[in-house]
This record gives sequence, C-alpha cells and structure tokens, in this order.
Amino acid sequence: MEIKEYINANKERFLNELFSLLRIPSVSPVKEHHTDMLKCAQRWTELLLLSGADKSDIMPTAGNPIVYAEKTLDAALPTVLVYAHYDVMPAEPLEQWNTKPFEPEIKEGRIWGRGSDDDKGQSMMQVKGFEIALKEGLLHCNVKFIFEGEEEIGSPNLEQFCKTHKDLLKADIILVSDTTMVGEDTPSLTTGLRGLAYWNVEVTGPNRDLHSGHFGGAVANPINELCKLMAGMVDANGRITIPGFYDDVQELSTEERKMISQIPFDEAKYKAAIGVEELSGEKGYSTLERNSCRPSFDICGIWGGYTGEGSKTILPSKAYAKVSTRLVAHQNPEKISKMFAEHLTSIAPKTIKVKVTPSHGGNGYLCPIDLPAYKIAEKAMGIAFGKKPLAARRGGSIPIVSTFEQVLGAKTILMGFGLEQNAIHSPNESCMLDFFFKGIETVAEFYKNYNGKD
Amino acid sequence: MEIKEYINANKERFLNELFSLLRIPSVSPVKEHHTDMLKCAQRWTELLLLSGADKSDIMPTAGNPIVYAEKTLDAALPTVLVYAHYDVMPAEPLEQWNTKPFEPEIKEGRIWGRGSDDDKGQSMMQVKGFEIALKEGLLHCNVKFIFEGEEEIGSPNLEQFCKTHKDLLKADIILVSDTTMVGEDTPSLTTGLRGLAYWNVEVTGPNRDLHSGHFGGAVANPINELCKLMAGMVDANGRITIPGFYDDVQELSTEERKMISQIPFDEAKYKAAIGVEELSGEKGYSTLERNSCRPSFDICGIWGGYTGEGSKTILPSKAYAKVSTRLVAHQNPEKISKMFAEHLTSIAPKTIKVKVTPSHGGNGYLCPIDLPAYKIAEKAMGIAFGKKPLAARRGGSIPIVSTFEQVLGAKTILMGFGLEQNAIHSPNESCMLDFFFKGIETVAEFYKNYNGKD
Repeated sequence: MEIKEYINANKERFLNELFSLLRIPSVSPVKEHHTDMLKCAQRWTELLLLSGADKSDIMPTAGNPIVYAEKTLDAALPTVLVYAHYDVMPAEPLEQWNTKPFEPEIKEGRIWGRGSDDDKGQSMMQVKGFEIALKEGLLHCNVKFIFEGEEEIGSPNLEQFCKTHKDLLKADIILVSDTTMVGEDTPSLTTGLRGLAYWNVEVTGPNRDLHSGHFGGAVANPINELCKLMAGMVDANGRITIPGFYDDVQELSTEERKMISQIPFDEAKYKAAIGVEELSGEKGYSTLERNSCRPSFDICGIWGGYTGEGSKTILPSKAYAKVSTRLVAHQNPEKISKMFAEHLTSIAPKTIKVKVTPSHGGNGYLCPIDLPAYKIAEKAMGIAFGKKPLAARRGGSIPIVSTFEQVLGAKTILMGFGLEQNAIHSPNESCMLDFFFKGIETVAEFYKNYNGKD
Repeated sequence: MEIKEYINANKERFLNELFSLLRIPSVSPVKEHHTDMLKCAQRWTELLLLSGADKSDIMPTAGNPIVYAEKTLDAALPTVLVYAHYDVMPAEPLEQWNTKPFEPEIKEGRIWGRGSDDDKGQSMMQVKGFEIALKEGLLHCNVKFIFEGEEEIGSPNLEQFCKTHKDLLKADIILVSDTTMVGEDTPSLTTGLRGLAYWNVEVTGPNRDLHSGHFGGAVANPINELCKLMAGMVDANGRITIPGFYDDVQELSTEERKMISQIPFDEAKYKAAIGVEELSGEKGYSTLERNSCRPSFDICGIWGGYTGEGSKTILPSKAYAKVSTRLVAHQNPEKISKMFAEHLTSIAPKTIKVKVTPSHGGNGYLCPIDLPAYKIAEKAMGIAFGKKPLAARRGGSIPIVSTFEQVLGAKTILMGFGLEQNAIHSPNESCMLDFFFKGIETVAEFYKNYNGKD
C-alpha cells in the first residue's frame, strides 16, 4: 500500500487514538493533575506498542515519568530518536474556549482541544508516520521514542535522565515535531531556536499593607518600585539594559538576513491576526528577525495589592512578577540568569527588598542546512506538502535540543507541523485535520529515505 | 457641678451606654447585618433623647438610615452640627481577637471591642460632652446630630441627604470626632485632610495571550507597557509628572513647616514599626510633610498575565492596575481625574490601547487655625489633656468634610480622640478609658466657651 493510501484507510483510527490522549488533562504546571500525568504516560505506552514498538516502558524521574519505547530492526542499522512531550499547558482562561479544552471535537476542518497541536497532535504524527513505515516495510533504521511529561515546566529532569540513560538513548539523529511552519502555504523546517531564562521576582516594601492615606508619599510602594525596575529593563531602542546581556549574541550575517527576507510575511495580516495597530521591538531589525533571531524581554505575569472589585486604598506590602527573556544561540542561560539577578538587586533602591528566584532556562539551537538528515526531511516534507520547505529560525525554545547535542552528541531535525493560528498555550488550541495527515505522511516519507547514509 | 465632677459621678452609666452600642454588630460592609444597622440606629435615638435632645428621628436614605437629633435652645443662637457614624468595619479575622469583638470588656485601662474608638467610642464622647454642657447650664448654642450608617462603605448616600435636608442641617460649625491624635502624649487637632482620586487602568495588547517565544520581541507586551507608563508617573525627585498636577497645590508656608517640625516624630521607630530600611518620597519635604501635606501616587493593585504556580511563557493580552493619588486642599479631584486619564492616554504608544475608568474621589480639606471655633476647641482640649494641642494636617481622606463645606457652607473642627495604637479596622480595637473621659471633657469645655462669637 502507498503511504497516502495507508493514511486514508486509517484516518478514523488515528484520530480516535489522538482523542484518547487529548481527553487526559495532563497539565504539568498544576500539581493537582499528577494522576492525569500518569494516566497519559500509560496511554502512550499502549499506543506505542500498538503502533509497532517492540517494548515500551514508563521510566521514573524525580518528577513526572518518561515514556520510552523502541523498535530495533538490526543493531547494525542507524538509529533515530524521536523526542516529544505528553504534558500540556493549563487551559485557563476557560471562559474563552469555544469548546471544552479536554473534550476534543472536529469542526471546520480542525481538531479543537488543548494539546491538539502542542504536542499530542504532533507526537501522534511522528508515531503514526513510524507505524506506516514499519507496517509497509519502508523502515531502514531503528527507532527510539522518548516522551517526557515536563516540557511545559522546563524539563527539569530530562537532562539528568539523558545523562543517566546515555547508552539507551544513543542515536544518530533526533526527530522533534514541536515547532511551527512559517505559514499554511509555506512549509518550513526549523533551523534555529531561541533559548530562555525565566525568573520569579518578589518586591517587599512595608511588613504589612498600609493605609495609603496615612503612609502614601512617605513609604516606597512595592508595586510602584516593581514597575520602575521592570520599565528600566528595556531602553527606548528596545534593547535590554542588563550589562553584558548582548556579549555572546552573534550579529546576523548578510546571507542570513537575506534568507529571512525571503520568508513570505504579510505584516498587515500579522497585525490584524493579533489585533494590534502597531508592532514593537528592537530598532534596526525586521519583525521576523526580532521574533526569531534576536533576544526579547517579556513580563509574563504581574500581581500585587488589591485586585478585587471596587477600590481599596492601600500601599501593599508585596508585589510580584514572572519575567522571561528569550535568548539566541551562544547566549548561556545560566550566565544570563545570574546577570539579571545581580543587576536587578544592584539597582533596587534601599527602600524595598528584591528577591529574584531563577525558574527554568535553556540554550538556543542552530541546525546546519547541509546535514544529510536535514536534506531527507526537506524532501519528505516537499512530497507531503507539495512545496520545498524553507529553512527558518524560530523564536520559541526547546532547551532539550541543545542538551541532546551536548549529552547525546546528536543533531536534531525540527520537523514541526504547527501553525501560528493553532493558538498553542492559548484558549481554542487547534490543528488542521489536513496538516495532521500531511505530518504523518512527511514522517513516513522521511523513514522511507533515511538509512543513515548520504 | 464642675465638668470633671459630673464625669466622675456618671462614669459607670457613660460606659454602660457605650457598651449597649458596642454590643450591636452594625457592620455596614456585610449585608447580613442589615437588622443590626436598624437596631443600632434605634439605640442611638434612645441615647440621644436620654442625653437631652428635644427630638430624635431615624431618617431613611437609599441605604442605611441616618439618625438625626437636635436640641434647640433659642433659634437666635448659633448652631453646632455633630457628624458621626454608627456603622463599623467587619471584625474578621476573629481568631486574632483577644476578646470577643461585640462583647466589650474593660481590661488594662482600655475598652476593648469593635467600634470602641471608630466611631462609637468617639461619638459617645460627643454626646456625653453635650449632655454635661446642657445639664450643667453651660450650653450657649443649638446642637444638631447627624449619625450615618454607611461611613465604612464610602458614605454613598450622605451627600444627597445633605442636599435634600440642607435647611434642617443648617449650622455655623461642624464637629467631627473620627480622627487620631499625633500621639498619646501629644494631643492634636486635625487641621487638614488629603483628597483622593482613584482609577482603574486597563492596558490591552494583542487580542489573546501570545506565546512569548513566537511573538516576544515583535509585539508590545501590555505588562511591560503598563510598567513603563506607571514608572513614568513619578520622576526621580518623587514628583508626579502629570502636566498641571501641581497647579493648585499651595506651597507650605515657613510657619506651617515650623509647626509640622514641632510634631514629635521618631523616624527610626516609624521605620521599625513598618519594617523598612529607608523611607521614600518627594525630595525637599520631611516625612510628616510628605504623608500629610503633599500629594502622593500609589498603585494600590496590579495584575495581568500568568500569576499561578510555576511558569508560563506568555505575552499576555491584558494588564490592569488600580491607581490612586492622594490630593491636597485646593486640588480638584474631578479635574485631576480628567488630567490623569488624558495624560495616560496621550503618552500611551500606538502598540497598545489604554482605558482609564475613574473610580471614587474626594476633596481635601483645610481648617484655618485662626477660626474662632478652632481656638475654642484648642483651649478645651488643652484643659482636658493638660497640654495645648498641636495643629496637625493628616494624610487620610474624609471626603464628606469637604462636602459639608460645599453644601452646608460650614467649616468642620476635626476634634479626634483616636490613637494609632487603637487599631481601628483591625483585630483588638480599643480605646483608653482615660481618653474616653478626656474626650467627653473636651467636648463639654468646647460648649462652655462656644457662643458663635469670638
């Protein structure tokens, strides 16, 4: 049977298998979902065996367990390692969903539900592509799967797992489907990722909430001060002001800027899609450069004082922020993390106390486009999507990709089938049905041509 | 009989009368206490008649009723209007009380219970002071009482009541006992109050929360922008930057600054009590000037983005703040409110949308210390407390005082007998027994000398 035929004959089953995963609220950032994490891992082992793996195990970590599976054709053949994650982001705010986040539905040619793209939908494309290659005799390599349950909380235990199980995970190339394409009509492979450093910031003023009439004007207000500190982190040119922050940032080459300028990009459409009148960011760089090849500074959350109905006239005791920077290749997140903490502490006035707690972080990544496996992926995607994919650096972070390179010594092909419009991490996450099947086809085509040789 | 003798002969009865009020949980912010509000109003009419009023009525408003009472000696004589409130703040958290909040007790020389100071204790000083003056033939004026039941929820119906009953409330001077003294050993009269303007600010960026990896660096983050806007509202010298904000602020005179500098103030103790290392505020002004005679800008609440456990890497759609300024006399809260909204909107970048919704506001107040009634109050307090009271402007707001001036055309003497240590609005509210009787004495002494002439 041809790859396309196999897909057509199994569409309903593929979707049912995906839905069985989407129904499990494996929300890693919320502790109450611990049992759901285990359920989801369990479901994956069943599905991986069903898809043709020789064995599939749930392996413990200090946090959520890792699902491991493998299919060994012949120890002498090259090995592909497929990495994915089975955890998802919280679905909140629930009132903004048009469907129930954990009751998947197909409507308007799309699969709706939390995880339908990120990353249950995309991992399923990998697994079903593998199934087809195996069942149709197109597989010429061994395949290993490692699905973690803590990607959305920064993969705190994955690096240690890789180090501990270095031999088990040994592979020649790694496949990851957890990124987006440039556009619906522009297939692309991701050749670069940004790194990340994230902090929790706590500002303490007086030892209790004070009456703003009795104390206002005499005592530093921690919210006012937090705003000042945060406002100062980015200058009028959109440059991050942390001393030394840009030391390891490599300027884009003329060639690279030329490649980026070839990516179709309609700024008016981009603005309309997110509902903003004007874009913003570092001066001297195009929008696509700013959101993929340059660092950024975002306050992801802020809170403090009275946030209820009506008004309360207080000078609060505390104010908090969750702060992140996206980094680019060569910037070291640990170095940046220390830099930020030291800088913020050093500029904080004595009228308040500032506490910076580093949260997760990760390195950026660059994939050379002359890598043989890259060329095979390029061809496979070209067949499935009818167009040669562009090479594009993207703004998101998958810190583990850099860890894989360091620990396992293997490069990763970022074969992502997501689209911006899929609204991952947001209400109404979805995935086009069409793309789900084209993704599966791409993976099967990849295996068809991959034998570890050029 | 002398005033002091009358007090000594009636101490037990005075306390019993106060206790009968303190036992009624007239908690206005909690709807379930509606019946208690009526009970408390009823009890006051009985006590006012008992104290010598000719008549006492419960008058309806759109909310809790107002207790009105009067004693007319002679229509040709001047009239004093006494304003107070019979409602109290909730007693929660109950577990922090050492006594039961609505079962008053005398221990360690203090009266313990919710309302023992604010404002049942202080209103009782007014009423018993009046009783003594009347019974001892020391009264040379007519007296009216207006006790409201909604002070703790912002007096939503009092202004309308004053306008509707303008003739009934006509008076030459108003007495209010609802403020604090500078310290236990430093009697003082409050000669100024700050005004207030309060807003809700909403900043909208993209039409949904965005992935900070995919969009960070290209799209304005509403939290980043809110921080910038807020940080810019106060400059490095602690001055509010809204154009025209200080236009109506009168500079403190050398004389006034000298008076303020005479108020005993231990900065080390002040800092230790609120747990801060350094104070903060407008350059060129002392702490007491800053927290009572100068305007202030406080963000009372802020929120936006992800504020839960762990981390979420988003560029949020919205960010919010609750913002207040304390104003000084002559600053018009409506004018300031418009100024702020216009300024914020004008400086907001086109990358976001800013919405400013004015919340409540109120005028500041100044009582001239050469006012004859002030001089009489000063003398009266000096007799009762054995020390000439200081004239002290305070930082809080009692918007109704300015409303009285505008609607009834009368100045208010802020004859407050409270102390910071009395813990009003907090668990274990109390009032020193000694101060209770000295307050009564002050009021009686005031009437003894007040005849509307110099």
